[in-house]
This record gives sequence, structure tokens and C-alpha cells, in this order.
Amino acid sequence: MKLRRSERMVVISNYLINHPYELTSLNTFAEKYESAKSSISEDIAIIKKAFEESSIGHIETITGASGGVVFTPSISKAESVEIAQALRDQMAESNRILPGGYIYSSDLLSTPHILKNVGRIIADAFKDEKIDAVMTVATKGVPLANAVANVLNVPFVIVRRDLKITEGSTVSVNYVSGSSDRIEKMFLSKRSLKAGSRVLIVDDFLKNGGTINGMISLLSEFDSTLVGVAVFAENQKGDRSVANYKSLLAVTDINVKENRVDVELGNIFE
Amino acid sequence: MKLRRSERMVVISNYLINHPYELTSLNTFAEKYESAKSSISEDIAIIKKAFEESSIGHIETITGASGGVVFTPSISKAESVEIAQALRDQMAESNRILPGGYIYSSDLLSTPHILKNVGRIIADAFKDEKIDAVMTVATKGVPLANAVANVLNVPFVIVRRDLKITEGSTVSVNYVSGSSDRIEKMFLSKRSLKAGSRVLIVDDFLKNGGTINGMISLLSEFDSTLVGVAVFAENQKGDRSVANYKSLLAVTDINVKENRVDVELGNIFE
Repeated sequence: MKLRRSERMVVISNYLINHPYELTSLNTFAEKYESAKSSISEDIAIIKKAFEESSIGHIETITGASGGVVFTPSISKAESVEIAQALRDQMAESNRILPGGYIYSSDLLSTPHILKNVGRIIADAFKDEKIDAVMTVATKGVPLANAVANVLNVPFVIVRRDLKITEGSTVSVNYVSGSSDRIEKMFLSKRSLKAGSRVLIVDDFLKNGGTINGMISLLSEFDSTLVGVAVFAENQKGDRSVANYKSLLAVTDINVKENRVDVELGNIFE
Repeated sequence: MKLRRSERMVVISNYLINHPYELTSLNTFAEKYESAKSSISEDIAIIKKAFEESSIGHIETITGASGGVVFTPSISKAESVEIAQALRDQMAESNRILPGGYIYSSDLLSTPHILKNVGRIIADAFKDEKIDAVMTVATKGVPLANAVANVLNVPFVIVRRDLKITEGSTVSVNYVSGSSDRIEKMFLSKRSLKAGSRVLIVDDFLKNGGTINGMISLLSEFDSTLVGVAVFAENQKGDRSVANYKSLLAVTDINVKENRVDVELGNIFE
């Protein structure tokens, strides 16, 4: 397909946005758009400048026979904070309080533009690490893990609290369920994670850390390494046993009587 | 931020790609990039041409005071078929067969670039319908519903097979569980779906249709309307009670003895 330069830049930038962290050779673009490699190289230079000036991300050029370009998405501090402040205000809405002092947040974590933005913020915090997979626990963590994995362009693995026939052989570990202090089991399909993987754990809410510690113990069963832990929100009243984690939001108080939730920005912004 | 035309086109096309089905006024871009509305209008014309020539999608210009541009993603028939053929070959790998004649597919439905493409194909099949929400059932349908919802830029709702404190009040219906022929219950949070919504149901696998019929009966509990049903794969040996659905893949035979899975393209390509 032969395109004009301006059109070519639009389609090449679309390609890069949809293939983050992937090496694409300039020849691929040159053949696809019937252009000289030198023209493609000039296109990339303009795209790189535009992406960097507007904090969309960075484009790295790798020279040599097996070279090409790699797009790494990013997000500016200002945009991250603005997104988190809007989410903080939404989380603090009094009608989210459920009996027992829980907060309803499923609506936020099932809205594409919110998920996309949260995924960008979390992925950005780990963009200098090599990550092979994102791990989460069913069900509420799944869309969040999916969003982070989309930006990092790696698969995600879903730990389950029940056994499903369609998962094949599984490995199980015990964990302390935060809400009830009971010992429960979590399961991961043996096929879902390769040995030696570097894994980022993502979850919606951190209270006592039982679920996350369960996932960390699963990692050693799979001879895999923990890169980090990131959560959408942490409850600062929780008795947290997770040493290192990054949170987007921190719930500092849930006052059921006064129908009030206090929410601050999390430690990912420190 | 003042940018050169070529750079402006890159960032405007990035914006449109990330805000499908959303009306954005030309003034928004004009102010953001300190350019005349007429220049933005020319940029959009070039982006529109590039998007259409490479089947990225369509840009509609709505004139008048409350006007602007709307980007609708699309995918060419050739690209859809190519993606589905690659997935068909992966689904037909003999090592996917699990005891009992089930197929392991969790790896496919947790790989971002596959999910993105499947989401594009399913969303494209319903792009002329007005859709307010995508519905699925936990856990395996979630990433797929998320992917379709991303393209349509609407929220998704997750029906659960268990009761969770953090969902608040729920509505439940009975359904016939396909795998065991037992009557079971599924639950949907009352807050998660507005009355009068037009809903697309998405699931990973269609066998007997019990789960999907359960979701359809939930829709009437929420005074909502079914727009359509789309599944990643259907099992043609199943005794399907769902009248209308679109499938990406069709499993025509699972032969455990000969360790063979036969897979064809689904009816979405008819």
C-alpha cells in the first residue's frame, strides 16, 4: 500500500501504539508502505518527537542487522496525578459504602477509559523492570491485570479461588483470607506460567495482604520471581503484611456512621 | 502545546484511537495544539484518509455548534480471517485436550494482542448497533468482555456464580449448568447495570447455552435489552438452546482417543 508521508505517519504511529515493547524493523514498514527505508526513518523521527513532546511514550531505535524501533508507552506525572485525583473523588462518594464497611468499586474497574489510564500509571511505574507476566486473583483483579498487561504487552495469569475443569492440572497453596481470617486455598493452572518468569502482581484492593502473600508463595512453586506488587487501592486501616507495594489510592478511613470515605493518593506518587 | 502539522497529526490520531465512539469538538484540538480550527480540519481529513485506506476505522465529521469528530474502529475482512485462521490453528493443537474432552484455552484469552484482535473482530460485527454495555460471566469471559468493551468504549458488567460482599445488593437467577446439568444460581450487582440498557453478551465458550440463557434472563430482571451474543468458540457437538449468536471459532470434534481437535472458522465470517 502506497501512502503519502502524512498518511504513512498516521498508520505507523497507530502500529507502534498497538505494539508496545515490540521490536519492529524499519524494513517491515518500508515493504508494507512501499517506501525507502530512509523515508521511514524520517517518519519515525517525527513520530518520536511528537510522542515525546506529548508524553505518549518513547521510541528507541536499535541499529544493526537485527535492529528496528521499540515503542515504550509512558505517562506524564501531571496526567497521572490528574487521573488519580479524579478517581480519588469518585472513590470518596458516600453512596459507595456497603454494609460492613466495604466500598463498591466494580463500576470503576469495568470502565474502559479508567482501566486504560490505571493500566498506564501502573505500567509506567515498572517500565524499567523486565516483566514476563502480570498475575492477579479472580475475579475483581482480572480487568486491572488485563489493563496493565495490555500496556506492557505481556500475558496475564489468573489465580483462582476454586477448581475449574477447564484449567487442567493446577498447583494450590494455602492463604489467610483477609475478610474472614480463615485459611483458604488458591489455585493456578500449571500451564499458565513458565518457570523462571519475572512477575508483577496486581490486585484491586490491599487490606491485610493475605491474598497477595498467597500469590507470592505460588510464585516460588512456579520457580518464578516477584518484580513488584501494585494495587488500585490500599486500606490504611488494614494490618498489612506485604512489605513492598505501590498503590494508586489509599483509603484512610471508612466511617459507616457518618457515611464518609476518606481517600488520598497512594504511594505510587511518592 | 504548539506542534508542527506532522506532529499534530500523530498526536491527534493517537487521541482518536484511544477515544473510540466519542464525540470530540475540533475546538478541543484547536485549543490544545494552539492551531486554527481550519488547520485541525485539514489534519482530520488526512487522518481520515489514512485510517480508511488502512482499515483502522472511520472518522465521521458532525457539523454544527455541538459538532466534532467521532472515530469508529474497524477491521478488514482479510485481517479478521487471517487472525481467526491463526487462532484456529492454535486451538487445534493436540496438547490442549484435557481429561473429559475439554480444551485448554486460557493462554489465548490472557494474551493482550490476541484479546485486542478478538475484541476488534467482535466489536466490528456489532458496530451498527447501539450498545450501552457488554455482559459476561466470571471468570473466563472477563478478559474477552473487557476487550470488546475497550473497542466499543462502553462499560462491561460481570455476572458472578458466587455471592461477594463487595458487590452490594444483587439480583439472582437460576440457570442450567452445561457441564453438570444441575440448576445453579448466578448473581449480578444491582448497581452494575442501568435499566433500559442495550446489552451485548460475550463469553469464551458456547456449548449448551445454559450460562448465556441465564444472562439473558438476568437482562429482563434489569429491564434491559439483548443486542446480541458473541462467543470466542462454539462446540458444535453441544445441544445449543441459544437461537442467535456469533462465533469466532467452531470446534467440530474433540477426539480424546486420537488426541485430535477439529476447529473451523465460526459463523461470524458467514
